Amino acid sequence: MSDFALSCPAPLAERERVLMAHGGGGRLMRELIGGLFAARLEPQHETDSATVPLGAKRLAFTTDSFVVRPIFFPGGDIGSLAVHGTVNDLAMAGAEPLALSAAFILEEGLELDILRRVVDSMAAAARRAGVRVVTGDTKVVERGCADQLYITTSGVGVLLHEGELAPWRVAPGDEIAISGDIGRHGMAVMSAREGLTFESEIVSDSAPVHREALGLLENGVRVRCMRDLTRGGLASALIEIARAGGADLELDEARIPVREDVRAACELLGFDPLYVANEGRFVAFVAEGEGGRAAALLPGGAVIGRVTRKGSGVVSMRSVIGAERVLDLLSGEQLPRIC
Amino acid sequence: MSDFALSCPAPLAERERVLMAHGGGGRLMRELIGGLFAARLEPQHETDSATVPLGAKRLAFTTDSFVVRPIFFPGGDIGSLAVHGTVNDLAMAGAEPLALSAAFILEEGLELDILRRVVDSMAAAARRAGVRVVTGDTKVVERGCADQLYITTSGVGVLLHEGELAPWRVAPGDEIAISGDIGRHGMAVMSAREGLTFESEIVSDSAPVHREALGLLENGVRVRCMRDLTRGGLASALIEIARAGGADLELDEARIPVREDVRAACELLGFDPLYVANEGRFVAFVAEGEGGRAAALLPGGAVIGRVTRKGSGVVSMRSVIGAERVLDLLSGEQLPRIC
Repeated sequence: MSDFALSCPAPLAERERVLMAHGGGGRLMRELIGGLFAARLEPQHETDSATVPLGAKRLAFTTDSFVVRPIFFPGGDIGSLAVHGTVNDLAMAGAEPLALSAAFILEEGLELDILRRVVDSMAAAARRAGVRVVTGDTKVVERGCADQLYITTSGVGVLLHEGELAPWRVAPGDEIAISGDIGRHGMAVMSAREGLTFESEIVSDSAPVHREALGLLENGVRVRCMRDLTRGGLASALIEIARAGGADLELDEARIPVREDVRAACELLGFDPLYVANEGRFVAFVAEGEGGRAAALLPGGAVIGRVTRKGSGVVSMRSVIGAERVLDLLSGEQLPRIC
Repeated sequence: MSDFALSCPAPLAERERVLMAHGGGGRLMRELIGGLFAARLEPQHETDSATVPLGAKRLAFTTDSFVVRPIFFPGGDIGSLAVHGTVNDLAMAGAEPLALSAAFILEEGLELDILRRVVDSMAAAARRAGVRVVTGDTKVVERGCADQLYITTSGVGVLLHEGELAPWRVAPGDEIAISGDIGRHGMAVMSAREGLTFESEIVSDSAPVHREALGLLENGVRVRCMRDLTRGGLASALIEIARAGGADLELDEARIPVREDVRAACELLGFDPLYVANEGRFVAFVAEGEGGRAAALLPGGAVIGRVTRKGSGVVSMRSVIGAERVLDLLSGEQLPRIC
């Protein structure tokens, strides 16, 4: 074998087409966003929302499409998920949600009763989160041109704080608090998709987290950066922040909350809970000495690690048996169409 | 035949599923929005954007999914269309666009070169419109679960005027100005879809209209209501405004600008240009005596009719041969997936 053969790139047809992994929250998605979208559209970097100045105020503005399969799963559905996802993206910027929009792409032949259930769920989720869906759109495509329905929600919020919550603010000594146990959303969707039954039903953690997240700010915790743990899970979120912020992180595996049933299901199916998507969990990087207070303000909260030094974004984890493991982005997502 | 037979509803399976016509901008879409979405989500009524108060300012907020087929057509593509559509929805509320978001649903297997072309076009359209795409999202679905790609754009803008531009402000005596010739977008997409060639190529009118629309306000024209003439075309937009505003309208067919090649193509294919979608045209209802000035401020502008009386929303048109025709909503759209 020549060196050429060893470094031979994938065939053109494979490399130059969209792959499922491009939507998976891992390395390929980052390459697509960085290389194709960001180079052309110049969006604001490093967060899931943008800041738009308006007079004396600053708006947060965010969007997400939801293509979860199946559209109903234990603990939620595509409608509630769409509301939670958008509320949470605003909250991660430190913004109080002001209003949501919802655009529906419907597949011809979809039962209207299914649509009614989804929209009812969306309305209930919005009410619980204290936000309204104020505008929307409906498009219909032919049978076979969508998978039942897709929803794109956007949100505007108003920033409650003066500074910026962003990876560049992360500094050595900062502590990392997590808002609760991980891995439930991904495993709940997976069980619904594959018709699996575990000993106990695993219910998605899908929920709005803005009250918890904004509560940290209101209680004076010095928050540097927050991130919800969606596609790619805890590991991908931390790696992204570490790389964007130029910092190395150290995690303590024993402190990362994972329910026993989730851990067992992950082991059974060969998933790593660190990379499994959540839809109601986030991490907060807070100033040294404030991790404990942050965790105490979060139901199910825990301090799971800290920023060790300025660096190139290495995230290492001390395992329960004392070994050290360096976490890296997966190329794609273990579970496609999770949100 | 009994009366029962005459009034027999469609079979349940037909009535209780999403039909292509539900996305067509006509009667069925209005029923879906009014009966299913608005009843549950309580969006703001009667316009394509919502108003969100923020301190001393008022935001406009809008969203649209784009599923046009084919994605490239004479005069534009799904990327430029998505930018124009959102900028125009903001403009119709009298809002200067502040920022756009773009969420992509990509079909596995889509050529990345196609995606690059679309995103380049989107970026160019945003630059020309003087607005930035500040945030976005990417999802990938399996082959056969989308048709190449769908884009959902949302926009936030700031209202430039004190009052409200809305159908309820329309009053007898008001004049109706149109910003240019109608029918080009629909026929351009149709020709691209069906591989038709007409004597001259019909090019879509897809364009941002915010400078023209906001120009009316800046020049002190007393504008009551504006509406862009997208799905359902001029006729559907006017009927909607007339019904929502409780007014009867009278149009003069001879004054409605339609290019000869568009008229010929419509006749050939059996379409009525009044119902064909446009993506760079709008109507403005203005105070009595100000129609001429409004039309003069619009390139290709014309005064095409007026509000005759308070009423139930009857839109009648005096034809070129002097006959009177009452316009009604179509059940769906002559051309599905036009935007």
